[in-house]
Amino acid sequence: GPVLLKIEGKNRFQFIVPFKTPADCGVEEFYDISSMSCVRCGSNQLRSITGLLPSYMLLILAVTKDGFGCIRCPGSISDDGKCLCPADTVLVERDVNGNFLDEAKCEACNGNIPALSVPNTFGDRCERCQASFINTSCVCSSPNILAGGLCFPPGILAPNTFSNFSVQSAWFVKNLYSSAAACLVFSNLTACQALGNMCVLNMHSFSGVSNDACGLFNAIFRSKAAMSSTHDISYWRSNLPWLYYGDEPGLAGRVLQTDPVPVSFSFRGKNKNTDIKLLTAVYDVGGQFVRWEAIGRGNLQLCPDTAVKKSAALSFGTAYKEGCDLSVADLLENHPTPLFYDVFMDLGGGENRKLLPLPTLVYNQQYSGRFINQGSMKNWYLSRRMFVVDTLSGREKSVSLLPKVIRVATSVKIRFQLVPRTQQGQVFPPLMIITYSDLLITDVNSQTVSVTFAVEYEMDQSDARMKTDTALGVLGGLAVLYSLLKTVSWKRRIGSTLIDAGTMFKFLLFYSGDLANVFFVVTAGTGLYWLIFYKAQQFVSVLLPLPAQEEQFVTYIGCAFSLKAIQFLHKLVLQVSVDIFLIDWERPRSKAGRTVQASGDSKRDPVPVSIWRTYFVANEWNEIQTFRKISPTFQIMAVLFFLEVVGFSNLALRDPWSNLSRSSQAYAPSYSLILRYGLATSLWICIGLLQVIFFTVIYEHFFEDKIRQFVDLCSISNISVLLLSHRCFGYYIHGRSVHGHADTNMEEMNNNLKREAESLCGQRGLLPNTDIQTFQVSLTNHLRSHYERIREPLSRRSGPSRLMDTSVANPFEQNIRAYHTMNHFLGSIIDHAHPDMDYIVKDKLMFERVIGMEFLEPTEKSIFYNDEAHSFSNVLFYGNEATLLIFDTLFFCVVDLGSQSFVLAAVLTYVQQMIFGLIRNFLGRKNLVNKTLVDERFLI
Amino acid sequence: GPVLLKIEGKNRFQFIVPFKTPADCGVEEFYDISSMSCVRCGSNQLRSITGLLPSYMLLILAVTKDGFGCIRCPGSISDDGKCLCPADTVLVERDVNGNFLDEAKCEACNGNIPALSVPNTFGDRCERCQASFINTSCVCSSPNILAGGLCFPPGILAPNTFSNFSVQSAWFVKNLYSSAAACLVFSNLTACQALGNMCVLNMHSFSGVSNDACGLFNAIFRSKAAMSSTHDISYWRSNLPWLYYGDEPGLAGRVLQTDPVPVSFSFRGKNKNTDIKLLTAVYDVGGQFVRWEAIGRGNLQLCPDTAVKKSAALSFGTAYKEGCDLSVADLLENHPTPLFYDVFMDLGGGENRKLLPLPTLVYNQQYSGRFINQGSMKNWYLSRRMFVVDTLSGREKSVSLLPKVIRVATSVKIRFQLVPRTQQGQVFPPLMIITYSDLLITDVNSQTVSVTFAVEYEMDQSDARMKTDTALGVLGGLAVLYSLLKTVSWKRRIGSTLIDAGTMFKFLLFYSGDLANVFFVVTAGTGLYWLIFYKAQQFVSVLLPLPAQEEQFVTYIGCAFSLKAIQFLHKLVLQVSVDIFLIDWERPRSKAGRTVQASGDSKRDPVPVSIWRTYFVANEWNEIQTFRKISPTFQIMAVLFFLEVVGFSNLALRDPWSNLSRSSQAYAPSYSLILRYGLATSLWICIGLLQVIFFTVIYEHFFEDKIRQFVDLCSISNISVLLLSHRCFGYYIHGRSVHGHADTNMEEMNNNLKREAESLCGQRGLLPNTDIQTFQVSLTNHLRSHYERIREPLSRRSGPSRLMDTSVANPFEQNIRAYHTMNHFLGSIIDHAHPDMDYIVKDKLMFERVIGMEFLEPTEKSIFYNDEAHSFSNVLFYGNEATLLIFDTLFFCVVDLGSQSFVLAAVLTYVQQMIFGLIRNFLGRKNLVNKTLVDERFLI
Repeated sequence: GPVLLKIEGKNRFQFIVPFKTPADCGVEEFYDISSMSCVRCGSNQLRSITGLLPSYMLLILAVTKDGFGCIRCPGSISDDGKCLCPADTVLVERDVNGNFLDEAKCEACNGNIPALSVPNTFGDRCERCQASFINTSCVCSSPNILAGGLCFPPGILAPNTFSNFSVQSAWFVKNLYSSAAACLVFSNLTACQALGNMCVLNMHSFSGVSNDACGLFNAIFRSKAAMSSTHDISYWRSNLPWLYYGDEPGLAGRVLQTDPVPVSFSFRGKNKNTDIKLLTAVYDVGGQFVRWEAIGRGNLQLCPDTAVKKSAALSFGTAYKEGCDLSVADLLENHPTPLFYDVFMDLGGGENRKLLPLPTLVYNQQYSGRFINQGSMKNWYLSRRMFVVDTLSGREKSVSLLPKVIRVATSVKIRFQLVPRTQQGQVFPPLMIITYSDLLITDVNSQTVSVTFAVEYEMDQSDARMKTDTALGVLGGLAVLYSLLKTVSWKRRIGSTLIDAGTMFKFLLFYSGDLANVFFVVTAGTGLYWLIFYKAQQFVSVLLPLPAQEEQFVTYIGCAFSLKAIQFLHKLVLQVSVDIFLIDWERPRSKAGRTVQASGDSKRDPVPVSIWRTYFVANEWNEIQTFRKISPTFQIMAVLFFLEVVGFSNLALRDPWSNLSRSSQAYAPSYSLILRYGLATSLWICIGLLQVIFFTVIYEHFFEDKIRQFVDLCSISNISVLLLSHRCFGYYIHGRSVHGHADTNMEEMNNNLKREAESLCGQRGLLPNTDIQTFQVSLTNHLRSHYERIREPLSRRSGPSRLMDTSVANPFEQNIRAYHTMNHFLGSIIDHAHPDMDYIVKDKLMFERVIGMEFLEPTEKSIFYNDEAHSFSNVLFYGNEATLLIFDTLFFCVVDLGSQSFVLAAVLTYVQQMIFGLIRNFLGRKNLVNKTLVDERFLI
Repeated sequence: GPVLLKIEGKNRFQFIVPFKTPADCGVEEFYDISSMSCVRCGSNQLRSITGLLPSYMLLILAVTKDGFGCIRCPGSISDDGKCLCPADTVLVERDVNGNFLDEAKCEACNGNIPALSVPNTFGDRCERCQASFINTSCVCSSPNILAGGLCFPPGILAPNTFSNFSVQSAWFVKNLYSSAAACLVFSNLTACQALGNMCVLNMHSFSGVSNDACGLFNAIFRSKAAMSSTHDISYWRSNLPWLYYGDEPGLAGRVLQTDPVPVSFSFRGKNKNTDIKLLTAVYDVGGQFVRWEAIGRGNLQLCPDTAVKKSAALSFGTAYKEGCDLSVADLLENHPTPLFYDVFMDLGGGENRKLLPLPTLVYNQQYSGRFINQGSMKNWYLSRRMFVVDTLSGREKSVSLLPKVIRVATSVKIRFQLVPRTQQGQVFPPLMIITYSDLLITDVNSQTVSVTFAVEYEMDQSDARMKTDTALGVLGGLAVLYSLLKTVSWKRRIGSTLIDAGTMFKFLLFYSGDLANVFFVVTAGTGLYWLIFYKAQQFVSVLLPLPAQEEQFVTYIGCAFSLKAIQFLHKLVLQVSVDIFLIDWERPRSKAGRTVQASGDSKRDPVPVSIWRTYFVANEWNEIQTFRKISPTFQIMAVLFFLEVVGFSNLALRDPWSNLSRSSQAYAPSYSLILRYGLATSLWICIGLLQVIFFTVIYEHFFEDKIRQFVDLCSISNISVLLLSHRCFGYYIHGRSVHGHADTNMEEMNNNLKREAESLCGQRGLLPNTDIQTFQVSLTNHLRSHYERIREPLSRRSGPSRLMDTSVANPFEQNIRAYHTMNHFLGSIIDHAHPDMDYIVKDKLMFERVIGMEFLEPTEKSIFYNDEAHSFSNVLFYGNEATLLIFDTLFFCVVDLGSQSFVLAAVLTYVQQMIFGLIRNFLGRKNLVNKTLVDERFLI
């Protein structure tokens, strides 16, 4: 609790005063409003009723009613010192001219014709008695029964209880039958309204017994069938309020989905019209008409908010939802009696202004005990008139006591439905959906009740969904074909024709990748479609799917992501297990060495060929493994910048506006998942494509091209690279130096480079006088078998015997021998030195390139396809940018859909890229070490 | 405008009704509230006054007042068919028993003693006349003047105009003098209050003339000096409201800063008390006391908002500010008459509850034409009582017409000031600061007025500021010393002793770096101090600086950033101009070659030493240039993650709570720049340090250490690196292979590595049997001159003759020759082959390490200092992590302070890092090419 320090002595400049309220003053004190303290009344004075002023009062005589004089009383004196008269009489203190009488008189009021007077509520005048249907006297004489100020004939039923909580509602007890009778017998307009209001308070429900408010209303409604209906509407009988639409089966559907509202909405252009004009006729609980009011300034919106934000509820196309917890104490204070609203849509029209009544669906409405409005639309029973807060009918015994139960419209929703295929922005009559909740009052000051007000816009999405599904089906079929083709190509490249479980598995892997693309294209297309069509349309022709309608879409995204992840992992596994060998063309150089070699006895004499060029090439290969066509971090930063800083994320709000910055004062609707996805994918793909274009067109031309640099390096270092991605298929980078030797000093290297720059030497190509250094290779089975036989000791390294490889000298020497053999073997193959394993060089057909499959089978000779596009990068991240980009995009979007936070998505995407980059680098390096025998310490 | 489509025919299920209001009905129609249309009255009926029901009315006779009967009139008949009586008479239709008279009578009221009656407002009864001071009759007879219902003695002045807009206020005209007189003469409590309220409506201002409201009030105030004051407060006279504190000079300061409020605030713990309990006595404009009310439910807070958010205003320590634009139409509707508030702070105390009156400062208050309250506190004239909206006094002619001007309290601010050096959470009496604005009414429906309500917490910051400045002074002095030391060291290292402009400039450069550190440490420390002390304190002992008090802090941050930027650029320039040479120890290997070399005639015969190892080393050096001890992108992502996703940014809100996630329903105060800065720097430095620890302790031990790898590579490749960062100072990496040759094949390389792993060969160190490969070197001037002479042709490359270097063959060959000479020269130096340029190897003293300066001058011999810490990384990003980290931190914070967006700061920091990384890489590579002669094509 608060700590009140001791107030020591008297502070000179701190003024502290005691706290007193009028209630704190005694009976002979009054509240001095100047000093805010209780002051003793003068002699012969008592405090006035409010306690704020002293009253003149001689304690022996009685005080006059105005409190300024004294008078003798005819009878007793009240507690506050005034004369008392018996019931049915009035106290008279002055004559008609205002002169005081010597002694006050108690006069009886004449209740008979023509005076028909009774004492007024203050008991000081005679006034006319309630005159609705008593023709002879103000006295309701037996056997008639007085109820609600009306005199009823005998035989009336007792009013029933109010609700589930079994509250004996004082209001209903007093007014139900009197209103019903007054309405039925006298067609009393306010009585009919009051009866209708009681039915509305009962949430339009008929219970089993027929004497509840709605039962009585309907009985009167039926009894007036003969009379004309109001405005030609058969559900609206003369003198009665319109509470119900008919209960014909299917009527709701016909009312809600037959005729469009004769107003058209448009988001932009000169006919821009987004104002929803709603009017309501307001009645009080007694049935009095109060006024016409516009909806939108808080009559239905209970939550406090600025006028600007509240008015957003009536801007067509802006999904509005505002909820809050309201204190029950506030509700009781602000809504002592309920108000009733007949809501209409204002159609305009100048002099002959027209109104469209809004059908209302009361969610809790019961029809003989069943909640009919919670089922399908064909059973709905539409109604009219609503209230927002009812703190009255829950009061037992007296309407001035605290209620036992209050009833609040905790959810008010206005639902607009677009006319299918409209190009004019036409909607069906909007529906109000109201859910009432009862709250048992236990502790007024701490209890709260949660209320929401929402405006929803809906259109029939089955059309769009069918189109999506069709696209998925057609593209999915194509994907099957394409995956089959890939599987066939794969079978060919591994040199096998058998169709086994592995083939099926491989097919499924290919298919998952293609299907992921299909899902991605369809979902991204759908997202972009909504983004463009919803945000850019003039006349309203499409509306966003509601959150519930987005579920299928989210499922599709999930499919796209998981399938893409499978494809990505598959590619990763393939890349880190590719076969690679570096062929060193350098031969020992000194003549002396060569001649000594021939003699055979001093093998150690020749100058060894330096391994450093191989190290250099392997090191560079290691470095470009995870190099990509884009900068992944820049990608994330750029996307984040546009979404969060520039404000593109505002485009995903559920409203029709396309401005990037929103005022903090304005209402912020919720986000649409589809728009968020569409926005994120478009932005991600756009920035990705721009980066790819920048890097491939500008950066690689004018700054550096890592892939070309690697090919150049091979050529300068006199080293060729053979990459086998499949058993019988792979890539070959021809790196034989045109200068014969690369293992030389700086002077010669520089000379070589200069000579080449001045075209003083041969061309680098594999075939004489060509420039083409990179090839796709289709190997014969024979060649591959030979290759494998040589490679056997190397591949054993990674076998189970590896544990002891440092202790046993044999495998190491074996490896070196295998390396030299392989180097020699592959060199001689390239040099056409093995007639039985010869190869031919040819161009690939355009069609072969497109479908990624070779038509010729390398049965006798291997085939080297010219490949100027450096397609060996397919075994690097570089050649798989599309897969990586789409995988990153989907990862980003999936995180965002789950968390609704672009920042988290960006951070996690970065972490994902980092982790997979590290894995790829680590495994790729291990593979490189295993396959090329380069020590890991040189791959730095 | 809205498009109303043609309504064709009759729609079966769409119900459209015409819009009619009661005002649309004619005189013989009434408004049928059931059908909401106008219906004709029956015969002999006219519509009732409200128009909602038909009235019984015989058109020949007059209607009785209750509208139910007919009666003959004594005089004329009114427009609505009722009897009219002359003024001063009442219409009598019934006798005292309620029976109708045959003919109504007009009776005069007796105005004399003792009846003293006049007609009531309805003209149907005689009531007592206004009785405050007329003792003999209700008639105010000449020469007395009737004003405001009171009878004044003659000679009264005419009321003056209301405000700057020259409005003849109807309210003031009617009530000013009557209230003043009633207050003065009769001490009428409500009249005194009403007069006081008029003074409050005048914003407590005295104009030049003495007959304005405040002048009258003060005249009465002075005239009551003899009477006792209320609650012993001399400014509060009996029967009068308390409007002013005294006008003694300096009283405001004494009231506001002498005695603390006897309540102590505490943010946590069992004595937690953050509730500010404010009570207000409410008076209406007529001077009636209305009620006691708690502040906080909207009486002073005009902006609509939820109760939860509004109540945040009264949570101690939460900087609250809420503003909005209110529609004038709403104001007029909701505030027909002003209410007046006497605001108190509730001190609690059970039975003897005490109140502390809040002093009020009316910003617009004038004292003889001067705005005294806009100056310094010593001239302030404190007051009491305020209003929020006054739409009444601006009404001319009649109080029921639209006002010409309204006056609104557009800014209400409650300011708490902490008692200096309190440990108990004590505050001085809070001050309310009110600014009223006048608004000329031109168009009620479109005009808005912008209002704010704020609660501020302030403490005297001069103490904190003095501490900050002291710290800056002391540390700044130390920085001067340290920079001097650095300058001396630098002079030594460049081998010069002359003090010239360059020296001064260098000193300034060093000083800017050290001063930047000082500013950074002080600002970051201050930020962290506020973050910890403000957010973690139990009893309130510190309060955040107000935004205006933060300016100096922001200036300091600006200084820190600009100075750090200078240091960073300085280091960057030094790094990209460092001298580097790669010494190749490899000698041609074949015996044949060597013997041939000796013979001299066939120089070209020896197998050249391969340059590829040099390429490899240069390439690696190029790659580690921008390598850092942290991952900068991970740093950014991690900071962003913690700030934006985990919600650390909520710690920078101006409230005492330290929870990371805030409900969207809760009030969100503004951010404190200091807390944002403290948070961002602590987080950035913490994550940076964690990364540095992770990378240096874990990653570099268990995964890879790029710097050590480079040193190892030098050793394996038989290449030493000499780096000269200053003219006579630099670093040396000894890379002479222990195997004699490194230019060999894979087999031998692997054997070498294996032998070394098994310690079968010598150690790598420069001195025999040592391991130390890295040194700091202090060269003699002699050695350096020699070095420069050899290097001359190389450095000319970058001179003006460079343009033609490819066309002319000479420089290229010169370069190669210089390279070989340099290689030979440096090799022989290391081998102690030049006795006049010999060197010694020694350990650096601990103190030398600490201050970064050598005590020994290398006059005769160069000195090689053992340096196991790889301090050569000082010429790389790697060795300058602290500078880079602080620069990034400051960059991030400066962007954030400017934009209040951590996301933008993160994106721009990334871009900054990228750009400087590219610049460093580009220039570093150019430098490497120039200095080592390695072709740029090998640095990939």
